[in-house]
Amino acid sequence: METASRWSKVADGNVVLEFIDVTLRGCAQVMFQNNPLTGLLFFIAIFVGAYGENNPAVAYGSVLGTVAATFAGLNVKDRTSWKAGLYGYNGCLVGAALPTFLDVSPILWLCIIMGGVVSVIVTLCIADVLKTWKVAALTAPFVLVTWTVLLSSYAFTELHANALPTPDLPHELLQASSAAASASHFFAGVLNGISEVFLLSSLIASLLLLVGLAVESLWAAVFAVCGALLAVLTASVLGAEQTSIDNGMYAFSAVLTAIALGSTFNQPSWRVLIYTVIGVIFTVFVQGALNTLLAPVGIPTLTMPFVLASWLFLVPNKEVMPVHRQ
Amino acid sequence: METASRWSKVADGNVVLEFIDVTLRGCAQVMFQNNPLTGLLFFIAIFVGAYGENNPAVAYGSVLGTVAATFAGLNVKDRTSWKAGLYGYNGCLVGAALPTFLDVSPILWLCIIMGGVVSVIVTLCIADVLKTWKVAALTAPFVLVTWTVLLSSYAFTELHANALPTPDLPHELLQASSAAASASHFFAGVLNGISEVFLLSSLIASLLLLVGLAVESLWAAVFAVCGALLAVLTASVLGAEQTSIDNGMYAFSAVLTAIALGSTFNQPSWRVLIYTVIGVIFTVFVQGALNTLLAPVGIPTLTMPFVLASWLFLVPNKEVMPVHRQ
Amino acid sequence: METASRWSKVADGNVVLEFIDVTLRGCAQVMFQNNPLTGLLFFIAIFVGAYGENNPAVAYGSVLGTVAATFAGLNVKDRTSWKAGLYGYNGCLVGAALPTFLDVSPILWLCIIMGGVVSVIVTLCIADVLKTWKVAALTAPFVLVTWTVLLSSYAFTELHANALPTPDLPHELLQASSAAASASHFFAGVLNGISEVFLLSSLIASLLLLVGLAVESLWAAVFAVCGALLAVLTASVLGAEQTSIDNGMYAFSAVLTAIALGSTFNQPSWRVLIYTVIGVIFTVFVQGALNTLLAPVGIPTLTMPFVLASWLFLVPNKEVMPVHRQ
Repeated sequence: METASRWSKVADGNVVLEFIDVTLRGCAQVMFQNNPLTGLLFFIAIFVGAYGENNPAVAYGSVLGTVAATFAGLNVKDRTSWKAGLYGYNGCLVGAALPTFLDVSPILWLCIIMGGVVSVIVTLCIADVLKTWKVAALTAPFVLVTWTVLLSSYAFTELHANALPTPDLPHELLQASSAAASASHFFAGVLNGISEVFLLSSLIASLLLLVGLAVESLWAAVFAVCGALLAVLTASVLGAEQTSIDNGMYAFSAVLTAIALGSTFNQPSWRVLIYTVIGVIFTVFVQGALNTLLAPVGIPTLTMPFVLASWLFLVPNKEVMPVHRQ
Repeated sequence: METASRWSKVADGNVVLEFIDVTLRGCAQVMFQNNPLTGLLFFIAIFVGAYGENNPAVAYGSVLGTVAATFAGLNVKDRTSWKAGLYGYNGCLVGAALPTFLDVSPILWLCIIMGGVVSVIVTLCIADVLKTWKVAALTAPFVLVTWTVLLSSYAFTELHANALPTPDLPHELLQASSAAASASHFFAGVLNGISEVFLLSSLIASLLLLVGLAVESLWAAVFAVCGALLAVLTASVLGAEQTSIDNGMYAFSAVLTAIALGSTFNQPSWRVLIYTVIGVIFTVFVQGALNTLLAPVGIPTLTMPFVLASWLFLVPNKEVMPVHRQ
Repeated sequence: METASRWSKVADGNVVLEFIDVTLRGCAQVMFQNNPLTGLLFFIAIFVGAYGENNPAVAYGSVLGTVAATFAGLNVKDRTSWKAGLYGYNGCLVGAALPTFLDVSPILWLCIIMGGVVSVIVTLCIADVLKTWKVAALTAPFVLVTWTVLLSSYAFTELHANALPTPDLPHELLQASSAAASASHFFAGVLNGISEVFLLSSLIASLLLLVGLAVESLWAAVFAVCGALLAVLTASVLGAEQTSIDNGMYAFSAVLTAIALGSTFNQPSWRVLIYTVIGVIFTVFVQGALNTLLAPVGIPTLTMPFVLASWLFLVPNKEVMPVHRQ
């Protein structure tokens, strides 16, 4: 930890280094951690995952988005939040999400910059609204900004989508042969769920993310893995589509719900554990529900299931939990 | 009333009887009444209606949902609300709604239990948010939890829907022969509207529900009938689909709006009466609008038209009504 | 200005003249101005535009809606807001919008009266909710009431739509030949954008509206024109459909965003100018996004893009702007 405090001192004394420090913390805050080393490991994970999927623009986009948002955050009066990277993480996700679904073009990079800047305004807006109930904005700014750009891509020829689901009316899922389900599948679904937080399916990226989490909080890493496990289990019991489970699609929101409810906004205890288990299971239902709800407009849920479930479980926190909220 | 107070004394002294008392009050709170006898009559109405429609799971589901929610409510600090049954009514409706639309299976019963538990968390969340404007959660927790499960049923093979509307783009209604409209039709639409609050079309159930209402508040029963009457009249003038009117589909939300605006949150007066009339008519428009809005995703409106219209008319209460709000 | 103050004195002394004065101010408040002469010029513009499109019902509807809302507003305790026309402008827009999309019939006129009355209740409700964050209701009451009636028109045969978009799944826009874009097209898109605030495509109406704005605030007129210009430019660069751009469909919400952010709720400065530019550009994205989102249910966006973008940019105002908010 001595290295960490020495780095903090160096970063504080130099404008450029401070900006880099805050940008790294911005990336780490995607999973609620305020630690530049965690952010660095997360960025490495994104690069590994993005190059592994032959879509490096996702990695560069996430850097550009974090930088744009961190830069825009300089205009906000509240410097403590800025220093903790709390204006950066939504820009990071906007920058990773847009190249995942849209063709790379000069206008796309402009959209990432604009998205990063606007994500700060949305963060301020939502934080201001939610502070009445003492709840954080979570990744709602990322989801709202990205949904806006993705939805508008249907109306603008210069934004061409190549990986959005085709708009379609929802239809009952056909009974799939459950033969496909096996231990290795299960393992894939759990691990991919962790890297899918950054919209990537990559085992190495997932391991790097877990290391990054553990650097700052071992509990966070434990809850991430257990959340993914429980989510994959729930989705399998309910009979969700096997490919989606394997890709981690039912786990990534649950990972965030588990970290948020289990370790970030509550201190681990038996009571908190039960509450988190219910929250994670409900997140899987919200994931399925949002898949249906968004089918006719052809956009992905992103991390909205996590946001909705966590808001739901965090607002009444003080009425059901003992007062050890951080 | 002597019997009532004697019962209260007995119930207070015994944990099991108290739990039964609160469970009954939970059922009665679906129509805003805090009275175990009303709850008992309501449960009888549900059993009569459910067996009449050959779907007894609706009745057992409503009991299970109320019990699960009342049990979960024991964890909340606010005991006064718990004793009044305010944590139970949404679970009751979740338990009645899920077997109405989904196949009966072990997983369905687990969903009802989970839905009952989560409905308490949603109730706390919404109540906490709305207390800033001094408005109640109404049946919003029921609607949100049930929508989540019904929407997710399209994604999960183990939740099989048998009575959900097929997802479809909305299309202009063709001019129906209005020859079908007659006094007996009108009568059916009004009465079914009352039992449809519990998702049942049953004349006997409706009469039992009215008796249950009258036991606690005669005004509530009067407003229920008049609300249903006005709603059926409005829907007929606007040219809504005759079958839907006959089934009470345009009346059940209006019944609740009428009780809420007319007797629960205001004391009857001329001014309140006019306000309630506008509220009931607007509820019919919201019902039509939500039918269109939800068509592409294949889920029913449930009591959302009531919730939206009543929130709309209750928030500005103090600015347009004299100060006799209860 | 002497004439103005003399008029104010005359209007104050006579109930009928006062009502006319407030009705005119109600129309002017559609573009945030508190001035009866502005309102008179706006009404003239609406009549010119409506007769020019052979749909005079739009003009008479706007008068009826404003009168109904102003009349309903008499029941609210807050007389200062009433006198400023703040209960009238949403009724004005409801009255202009319904005959734009629905067949003229006795029931339509009743809907306009009801819509005007309910718009006041929605205004009170939203104002009450938003005052926690010191943000105005803007035209949200108009949009919500009109959406409700338009959506319900699919369910009611007596409300027949003749100009609503056919419900359809969104599909990628095909690359249009950009040969159509030219200076005169550009000019049309900008000017039509101003009259489209009242749902009309008319150059003369646009000029009258600009004169009306300038009468009360030159800055408002300047921001209206510049907002429309920037929006048309942005939409062209993004490759929006040329016909929609020419009709002013991408500019009318941006016009209102520009007036709101640039002159009504902030005093012009460099910082405010940059903020307004970002807000206007983002409004164009929200317009494209809402076009996609509403495609399956067949209703127009109305001024919702303006409402959403402006709320988003106005809530964090105090955290990013110096304290010269009006």
